[in-house]
Amino acid sequence: MSKEPSDLFASIPLQWVGPARLVGDEVQDEVMIPLATYEEPLWPSVNRGAKVSMMTGGINTVVIDDRMARSILLEAPDAEAAAVTADCLRNRIEELQAVVRTTSRFAQLLDLHFQVVANLLYVRFELSTGDAAGHNMVTAAADALADWILKQYSDIRYVSISGNYCTDKKCSAVNGILGRGKYVVAEMTVPADICARALRTTPEQIVNLNIKKNLLGTMVAGGVRSANAHFANMLLGFYLATGQDAANIIEGSQGFTFAEVRHKALYFSVTLPNIIVGTVGAGKNLAFVQENLKRLGCLEEREPGDNARRLAVICAAAVLCGELSLLAAQTNAGELMKAHKKMERKSTAN
Amino acid sequence: MSKEPSDLFASIPLQWVGPARLVGDEVQDEVMIPLATYEEPLWPSVNRGAKVSMMTGGINTVVIDDRMARSILLEAPDAEAAAVTADCLRNRIEELQAVVRTTSRFAQLLDLHFQVVANLLYVRFELSTGDAAGHNMVTAAADALADWILKQYSDIRYVSISGNYCTDKKCSAVNGILGRGKYVVAEMTVPADICARALRTTPEQIVNLNIKKNLLGTMVAGGVRSANAHFANMLLGFYLATGQDAANIIEGSQGFTFAEVRHKALYFSVTLPNIIVGTVGAGKNLAFVQENLKRLGCLEEREPGDNARRLAVICAAAVLCGELSLLAAQTNAGELMKAHKKMERKSTAN
Amino acid sequence: MSKEPSDLFASIPLQWVGPARLVGDEVQDEVMIPLATYEEPLWPSVNRGAKVSMMTGGINTVVIDDRMARSILLEAPDAEAAAVTADCLRNRIEELQAVVRTTSRFAQLLDLHFQVVANLLYVRFELSTGDAAGHNMVTAAADALADWILKQYSDIRYVSISGNYCTDKKCSAVNGILGRGKYVVAEMTVPADICARALRTTPEQIVNLNIKKNLLGTMVAGGVRSANAHFANMLLGFYLATGQDAANIIEGSQGFTFAEVRHKALYFSVTLPNIIVGTVGAGKNLAFVQENLKRLGCLEEREPGDNARRLAVICAAAVLCGELSLLAAQTNAGELMKAHKKMERKSTAN
Amino acid sequence: MSKEPSDLFASIPLQWVGPARLVGDEVQDEVMIPLATYEEPLWPSVNRGAKVSMMTGGINTVVIDDRMARSILLEAPDAEAAAVTADCLRNRIEELQAVVRTTSRFAQLLDLHFQVVANLLYVRFELSTGDAAGHNMVTAAADALADWILKQYSDIRYVSISGNYCTDKKCSAVNGILGRGKYVVAEMTVPADICARALRTTPEQIVNLNIKKNLLGTMVAGGVRSANAHFANMLLGFYLATGQDAANIIEGSQGFTFAEVRHKALYFSVTLPNIIVGTVGAGKNLAFVQENLKRLGCLEEREPGDNARRLAVICAAAVLCGELSLLAAQTNAGELMKAHKKMERKSTAN
Repeated sequence: MSKEPSDLFASIPLQWVGPARLVGDEVQDEVMIPLATYEEPLWPSVNRGAKVSMMTGGINTVVIDDRMARSILLEAPDAEAAAVTADCLRNRIEELQAVVRTTSRFAQLLDLHFQVVANLLYVRFELSTGDAAGHNMVTAAADALADWILKQYSDIRYVSISGNYCTDKKCSAVNGILGRGKYVVAEMTVPADICARALRTTPEQIVNLNIKKNLLGTMVAGGVRSANAHFANMLLGFYLATGQDAANIIEGSQGFTFAEVRHKALYFSVTLPNIIVGTVGAGKNLAFVQENLKRLGCLEEREPGDNARRLAVICAAAVLCGELSLLAAQTNAGELMKAHKKMERKSTAN
Repeated sequence: MSKEPSDLFASIPLQWVGPARLVGDEVQDEVMIPLATYEEPLWPSVNRGAKVSMMTGGINTVVIDDRMARSILLEAPDAEAAAVTADCLRNRIEELQAVVRTTSRFAQLLDLHFQVVANLLYVRFELSTGDAAGHNMVTAAADALADWILKQYSDIRYVSISGNYCTDKKCSAVNGILGRGKYVVAEMTVPADICARALRTTPEQIVNLNIKKNLLGTMVAGGVRSANAHFANMLLGFYLATGQDAANIIEGSQGFTFAEVRHKALYFSVTLPNIIVGTVGAGKNLAFVQENLKRLGCLEEREPGDNARRLAVICAAAVLCGELSLLAAQTNAGELMKAHKKMERKSTAN
Repeated sequence: MSKEPSDLFASIPLQWVGPARLVGDEVQDEVMIPLATYEEPLWPSVNRGAKVSMMTGGINTVVIDDRMARSILLEAPDAEAAAVTADCLRNRIEELQAVVRTTSRFAQLLDLHFQVVANLLYVRFELSTGDAAGHNMVTAAADALADWILKQYSDIRYVSISGNYCTDKKCSAVNGILGRGKYVVAEMTVPADICARALRTTPEQIVNLNIKKNLLGTMVAGGVRSANAHFANMLLGFYLATGQDAANIIEGSQGFTFAEVRHKALYFSVTLPNIIVGTVGAGKNLAFVQENLKRLGCLEEREPGDNARRLAVICAAAVLCGELSLLAAQTNAGELMKAHKKMERKSTAN
Repeated sequence: MSKEPSDLFASIPLQWVGPARLVGDEVQDEVMIPLATYEEPLWPSVNRGAKVSMMTGGINTVVIDDRMARSILLEAPDAEAAAVTADCLRNRIEELQAVVRTTSRFAQLLDLHFQVVANLLYVRFELSTGDAAGHNMVTAAADALADWILKQYSDIRYVSISGNYCTDKKCSAVNGILGRGKYVVAEMTVPADICARALRTTPEQIVNLNIKKNLLGTMVAGGVRSANAHFANMLLGFYLATGQDAANIIEGSQGFTFAEVRHKALYFSVTLPNIIVGTVGAGKNLAFVQENLKRLGCLEEREPGDNARRLAVICAAAVLCGELSLLAAQTNAGELMKAHKKMERKSTAN
């Protein structure tokens, strides 16, 4: 193994696409979107959606929730003792909060959830973590909380600092239901004539495709809490461009596209319950990441968490742009393939 | 949007860790493993697993299956017509094969599967795609097949080139059950004394943790076809380092860690049904990717598909190394946090 | 434990509702539907749907597939040996078929599927089982097949006659994707005026509700291969009334309601990939079951399997009737509660 | 449709098996277990497990949680308005409680949860419902709550009294994570000699089978929050025998078997997060149901909910008995088939 830190790099092509118009509480701005990817057709695709946002009232966004989670795994003598311990902990939340505070000035305990299986006790701690995505912050807090619990309850034994009920970078249902990361909805209304002109489709076609492909098709595939075409592509590009832990695109990909024809226009939305991003922490100190975060307006002096939420909101807008554009393409037989071929020819030509 | 191709890059720190010893049919070699990541503790973690492979008989690997899939979505007048069309297509596989061949000299139709919902017909084409991961190859084939089907069956209408029954970059059950990507198992036997010395744990502790965390804990979290600690981290690092479409870590993360005490030693394995990698195609022409693939021995003159399978096998070995190392760390209260802190101090020191 | 067979009974209220009009290949008939349930509002609910079928062109049905499955669990020395064994078995299908034939004159091997995890080998046998639901027939076949395999492959060891990859009476994705039971679609077109008159709703309201509740709402709940309101209620009532193993409503409940406005009328369909019913076997010899099966026309002299498929088709029609009726009720605020209260008053009055 | 109430019945064979020894807080008793089923091998199977409980310290049980849920589906002008409404409702819980109290003297609001998707708002009300399973009680409460909300928030529109985020009688993840029904764990320790004598197996064999079949095998099948062999069979038999809505075996079946070798004995447990049973309500007034509930000691004068919890605890014990017995049988190649054949011969002989 070579010396640390790395003197090598994977240099992944990056482009800024847009601008896109955002109009929610967190961001009221025209923003450019950075995407790092080996899949170059992603850029014109997201760019097309961004263009649509400039031709309309823009992309409305809202942050529904914001928390990070880590679950420890403990073992009691029997199921009843596990249940009793869970009840005790529910009533000692202030003490748990005090333990959390010793680990970071930004960490704050928001809630805790339990699962008892046999004599096993899964305890899921949910924290706010300021502008950090919070992986390390919740692990440090969970570590201290586990220590404290083991001291308080002599019949409880440690099994693992993570019991997979967190759950990190794995497809599951728990993160969407209990919350992990920033929960963001982005929505836009696109008049029929702009659908035709900018996307070569109709509101009805988009709605029809979303129902049959994203909702029903994903169900048929055995998808879980997922109804979209390709959230993952935009998440990956954006996460890499902004120094995020891109393995979290896994839970990030579990979100919902919803479209409806309203007053003959297209209402189009993406709901992302699990955007896990931060503006400080691992990866954020790299020069190009700092530069990108700065250009995105996410390194400003604000309340802790505000920069990270701004970043999440722009991320959701990027997802909306790419999702709308691909669905529009898929309503037209052959368009997707043509776009790829065109892009490849360009690449080769250069 | 700036001019194409990109003149910017996300420069993601990359290290070669290892060597790891591989002993299966596809790879009989000591190999170094490249991992690009913002999460630097990944390197020593995978490196520790690699070291263990050098102290033992090595990592045995086997490729169980290899295919790529794309599902088109069609619409019939009613459910019966959809079912009849499915039956017809099953009996015209040679003709479908001929259509596929017109789209690429590497593409070959291996199988097709159907789902009928109401009057909708989801057709999943499964192809071998040589050394390409095959996203574009299956899309091109599906495009041609859809054209051909629409010409043959006048009562069938096109809905989408992808009906999400493929399924690409989304958490589902279908890919594991029907196959998409390379299906690889990697396994290693670690004597108890090496467990103690190199991993500071015991076979029993690893087995116990795997059952309670990866198997039961993931079930409790509502996980789907997933029982592991962090396959995603190694997949992401390896995919980025070798020019892969890293959004496919989503299905890649859906795999199984299985451990057992055998003759007092630790049997440890990772099963990855959906490794989606290639040695040609988008991303592969970048200079550093070429260099990395070459160093991995994956640009040799071989039968089509052999280079890609070698790459998948090394990838699975990397996953095994990192998975074993993290589980070992989690059997010891506090070790994980200490490792992270140590790594962070190092980073800061430099 | 009291002596066998039972001299006690759970006497579950049963009513015949309908008639419903069925118009597919399997059933071209007006049929009454028997439902045994403690939940009496189910009867008028299904009856309302049946009435609609009499006012329209009727319920069109099609059987897409018909098979029963059992998976055995074996263990090989390592993953490669497991994979090799799987390949061997794929090539010896005629021999496996011969083994199956020794266990029943009705059993026939249709297909087999494998999963390799570590050194474990899950082998899923799929059989046609004539007019039996087939639980015992596939178990007997699997038993004989396991015996045969163990004799042929000396390095393979037995783990279990069922490895849960079957999977019986448990919520999963595999049954819908690979097939288990009768796969039936039932569909009906209801003109807007009949929607208004008989169901007090509109095609648009039903379609809207189905999208937001059954498709999106189930996804949000972490549902798997399931998009319906209450398939389970009709399945339970019908299974109990006809001597079926009603624990199979679990996989039965995993199906899809799909509705669309077509030419201003309501297209309404239910897709049930896993109806597990038979006309012979456990429970079928009870006098009232014989009587009910006879009245349903399912004890006729026909090709093996035809009676069971007729039963499955009527079952799917019953599901359609009840599903349509409940959705119609839920489009009207308060109607559901009113219906329950009315029914309860009636019950009390009597 | 024939006149109501029903003058017909499905007469399902019922036997009392046992006694089983229960030793938890809710039940400290030797109890007989009633099971109504067409599958007669179920009786000796559960009986064998019950016998084991009499030879050991008995079955320990604990009720972890107890609640019933119904989710309404509302629509706001946009996502932000949906989020704001959710926040408002969280802060008006006392007012919601008052609305609930107008609908039943037993109903009490315990918690509420939200999901926002696009501009849709799913509100999940969780109530305690005394001795009723509570389907109707939560629907009545949800009806009143929806009315109240619509009056308070003029921009909110009604979509459905149930948005499938409840979720009733459908396979999902939400019920296990947020709670619906009685959450019960039952556990028993069986010394190795009793395993050998009464179950013809060893602790090690049971543990091994549970890991490879119930945990890993179910994962491989794409199961969700489910790791057991056949909870459904016991639930069905017990629900039918005690007047329950047996369609709720669907969520009931989603539970976990966990076994471990401890001090050379077998620790064996079943965790059932979603037992939905009551001692009053639909089905409970039938004469045989009254008799069965009385014999089970579940019609005593107690605090509201205590009778229903006692019933749930006995149900969980029945599940444990049957699960242990079947797993023991499956550790022995051929035993399962022999048991079925023996039972069938007996049935025929009579």
